[in-house]
Amino acid sequence: MAKLRLDISMSLDGFVAGPNPTVEEPLGAGGEGLHEWVFGLASWRESHGHSGGAVNVDSEVVQESIDATGAVIMGRNMFGGGEGPWGEEPWQGWWGDDPPFHVPVFVLTHHAREPLEMQGGTTFIFVTDGIEAALEQAKAAAGDKDVLLAGGANVAQQYLAAGLLDEAQIHLVPVLLGGGVRLLDHVDPGKVGVELTRVIESPAVTHLRYRVVSGAR
Amino acid sequence: MAKLRLDISMSLDGFVAGPNPTVEEPLGAGGEGLHEWVFGLASWRESHGHSGGAVNVDSEVVQESIDATGAVIMGRNMFGGGEGPWGEEPWQGWWGDDPPFHVPVFVLTHHAREPLEMQGGTTFIFVTDGIEAALEQAKAAAGDKDVLLAGGANVAQQYLAAGLLDEAQIHLVPVLLGGGVRLLDHVDPGKVGVELTRVIESPAVTHLRYRVVSGAR
Repeated sequence: MAKLRLDISMSLDGFVAGPNPTVEEPLGAGGEGLHEWVFGLASWRESHGHSGGAVNVDSEVVQESIDATGAVIMGRNMFGGGEGPWGEEPWQGWWGDDPPFHVPVFVLTHHAREPLEMQGGTTFIFVTDGIEAALEQAKAAAGDKDVLLAGGANVAQQYLAAGLLDEAQIHLVPVLLGGGVRLLDHVDPGKVGVELTRVIESPAVTHLRYRVVSGAR
Repeated sequence: MAKLRLDISMSLDGFVAGPNPTVEEPLGAGGEGLHEWVFGLASWRESHGHSGGAVNVDSEVVQESIDATGAVIMGRNMFGGGEGPWGEEPWQGWWGDDPPFHVPVFVLTHHAREPLEMQGGTTFIFVTDGIEAALEQAKAAAGDKDVLLAGGANVAQQYLAAGLLDEAQIHLVPVLLGGGVRLLDHVDPGKVGVELTRVIESPAVTHLRYRVVSGAR
């Protein structure tokens, strides 16, 4: 049975994006610093169509996630921002002609749209009937692999609150952002809890894996 | 030269105390769960006047902190709550006749009071002229050992903002509290940053040690 797995980089002060996003800094002030650990890795570069890069414990963690992923779920902001102008014109999102997913990607949105087939195995499928429907479709597409919940924070919080998230791998990055988008906001400890299942460390980032369980109180 | 070192347990969602503290739950709803990892450890039990207990990687981390500490700084709430009735009567705080510190403890308060000498080597010294004065006195008392910043969050934030904190060891506990007192709130990344220097893991808790540095932007 496919698991739903969150895999996300978080600052030590709990943010997955910095404050005041702009066109120049779409991840907010300092937000790019959350992802610096990943850009030079061989596994990340390969998924983005580049050769070379570092092979180390961080690249192994990334490769493991790529290998385990049969489908992806993301929010509309992560696909392409905002709510429009998807209905009117063929806006194809942030991810270029050959997106780095190489599997079906289910995008949560309120705007119905035909599936968008890209190069390299990525197809964006737009789901308008909610998080449970998206999960059902993604699990069917993933076969015996996992469904990766790519973000953002709001979508992660919805799946967490609904008790639908099985596992969370948080890449805890030694940066402070001071504001922005918190990953673990509005959590109800009466409904959900976590159990630590694995820690992998490197100088750049701490990879913390948790099983998500029903709340303890 | 003595370092100022923060050593504190934090929930995965960033809290060092839960919401809605009461007489029965002074650490707030679920807050006790932040410290469960420590109660059974031999090193913690010894500092609290008990024998026995578990000897493992967690107890080593606690023992290391105890051994390195020559003086402690804490806020008034951590000593004994609120602002009164210290002036009128000999309220001796939460910590009993033989507090677990066994070194001089500098308490930040607005109420002047004579030092309070307890059993077992703990003396509470009440400092009314601010965080820098407290640090100066604590460093003098610590000799060649460190000054431990015991908390709470508000005091930690003051020392962090003032650029006076040298090191932070965060015991990241796999619990979700959903609200309460955040450790890393009101951080200005223009002034302070962190560098990861050590990770020690156990099934119960992840011990993350950071060097505190000047801000990157």
